[in-house]
Amino acid sequence: MTSASPILIIGSMAFDDLELPTGSAHNVVGGSATYSAFAASVFAPVRVVAVVGDDFPEEMLGTMRGRGIDVDGVERASGKTFRWAGRYDTDLIHRTTLDTQLNVFASFNPKLPELYRDTPFVLLGNNHPALQLDVLEQTRAPLFVVADTMNFWISGEPQILASMLRRIDTLVVNDEEARQLSGIYNIRRAARDILTRGPRRVIIKRGEHGALLFDEDGIFAAPGFPLEDVIDPTGAGDSFAGGLLGYLSNQQQISALSLRRAMLHATATASFCVEAVGTQRIATITREDVAQRVDQIRSLYEFGASTM
Amino acid sequence: MTSASPILIIGSMAFDDLELPTGSAHNVVGGSATYSAFAASVFAPVRVVAVVGDDFPEEMLGTMRGRGIDVDGVERASGKTFRWAGRYDTDLIHRTTLDTQLNVFASFNPKLPELYRDTPFVLLGNNHPALQLDVLEQTRAPLFVVADTMNFWISGEPQILASMLRRIDTLVVNDEEARQLSGIYNIRRAARDILTRGPRRVIIKRGEHGALLFDEDGIFAAPGFPLEDVIDPTGAGDSFAGGLLGYLSNQQQISALSLRRAMLHATATASFCVEAVGTQRIATITREDVAQRVDQIRSLYEFGASTM
Repeated sequence: MTSASPILIIGSMAFDDLELPTGSAHNVVGGSATYSAFAASVFAPVRVVAVVGDDFPEEMLGTMRGRGIDVDGVERASGKTFRWAGRYDTDLIHRTTLDTQLNVFASFNPKLPELYRDTPFVLLGNNHPALQLDVLEQTRAPLFVVADTMNFWISGEPQILASMLRRIDTLVVNDEEARQLSGIYNIRRAARDILTRGPRRVIIKRGEHGALLFDEDGIFAAPGFPLEDVIDPTGAGDSFAGGLLGYLSNQQQISALSLRRAMLHATATASFCVEAVGTQRIATITREDVAQRVDQIRSLYEFGASTM
Repeated sequence: MTSASPILIIGSMAFDDLELPTGSAHNVVGGSATYSAFAASVFAPVRVVAVVGDDFPEEMLGTMRGRGIDVDGVERASGKTFRWAGRYDTDLIHRTTLDTQLNVFASFNPKLPELYRDTPFVLLGNNHPALQLDVLEQTRAPLFVVADTMNFWISGEPQILASMLRRIDTLVVNDEEARQLSGIYNIRRAARDILTRGPRRVIIKRGEHGALLFDEDGIFAAPGFPLEDVIDPTGAGDSFAGGLLGYLSNQQQISALSLRRAMLHATATASFCVEAVGTQRIATITREDVAQRVDQIRSLYEFGASTM
């Protein structure tokens, strides 16, 4: 752990109201920064920039500190914390947003603490691309920048999004977002198109089917691990991104090999997230847990004693 | 090729009318037996039991013979060939059946030629489970029996289907069929349930996401290869089953290892099927084509020079 460089994560911290096939859960602490931070903290020290309202429990910030997450960059603003409500279908894939209340997030204007500006690994969670760019401007020569985005910004802010894409190393999106961004249905062609827009790499998340990495070395597929208990997929994508950066930081090098290993560790990390409501599971996993699941995932492709 | 044991395939031969995102195609020769036979013929000699009408082109039977497919078991009945019409969504996954005309298939009462009864590898294509059982009764101690089925039989003929399941080695179904058959949404739990119903192995096809094998040795995942040209998914599942049996027959042994290798070869074989309308591509591929694609698929999981 001590050899890993810190990771800077910018994103949301939120209360979620979740209607899950297994029941409803209210006031669940969530948000992209929260999930990503817990996931990354398995591998490396984490610094979070986010905003919460008066109503956000100090106890959760304490839990995060206990996991090696520096929350000095979490601004406590007057008002209510960002709130999202959603209903998941039985398939736990499709979901309907029932309510979104930006609250203190509406006027979020992130200011990086001086210490944070030199963080080598940066995760720009899904946000207005202007805000993502603004945060990048406040950093000094980061080694590796990963960004997430969503349909809302792809359709609403195409030009600022295009500027953001030219400034990052890796874009992490799901298959629908990749299609929307490129205007191309075929995933492989869509990925190739996105690579012409700036990022050196694009990772396409496919939920239970894992994720694909497209880079100059080709295509790498991290399989989804068939889980027996899928409870709440909220935050799985954010946990994936956090796990990815956490692992890379821990390896202290960006190469075709370390990225491919990171894809498996990110998938493994995210797989824990869905096993419980909210951050319950992702906030408690250990490196040993992740290593074990990476072994399980790798066993999905093993032929046994011999090779082909 | 000469060392491979023959494969017996029972299924449909048909005319398909396809509405594809790239255009419409009429009177396309299709059917589960046709696709499976072309796929299996890449690896092994094939024997087909099916029925066609007066209108089925003799030329296609000649093409099949040219690929080492014995069509002596294809009965030519008076009347029209089975016909299916369907429309695919843009995603090329969801499809709507527009028309089904059983025609000569309605009174199909397969009689195995004497020579066929001792075929060691048997593929029972999707059919009424009573017909699948009837064919099995006509075989003598086959080494390996694979069956396919569909929602229509799962809901309509549960008891006969249950008898069929007790007589086969491997069931090949898609994820929706596995869920329907087991009554369990979670794929891993669904697979375990199916394994209590008779088959020693169940393979769950997941379209572009590949396929999962569940057996006593665990779970094996064959990834879908991200194709740049996906034209017509009709017959991909049948090509998968044909490729699976073809490869196993060629290996002449059923083991955890040969099954895992067969999963990759089946996925590779099926991936060609979707690259053109109907059987155009699957009817012309070589073992070298498949071997090359298996290498491409395996490269999806390779880390480069070093290992983890």
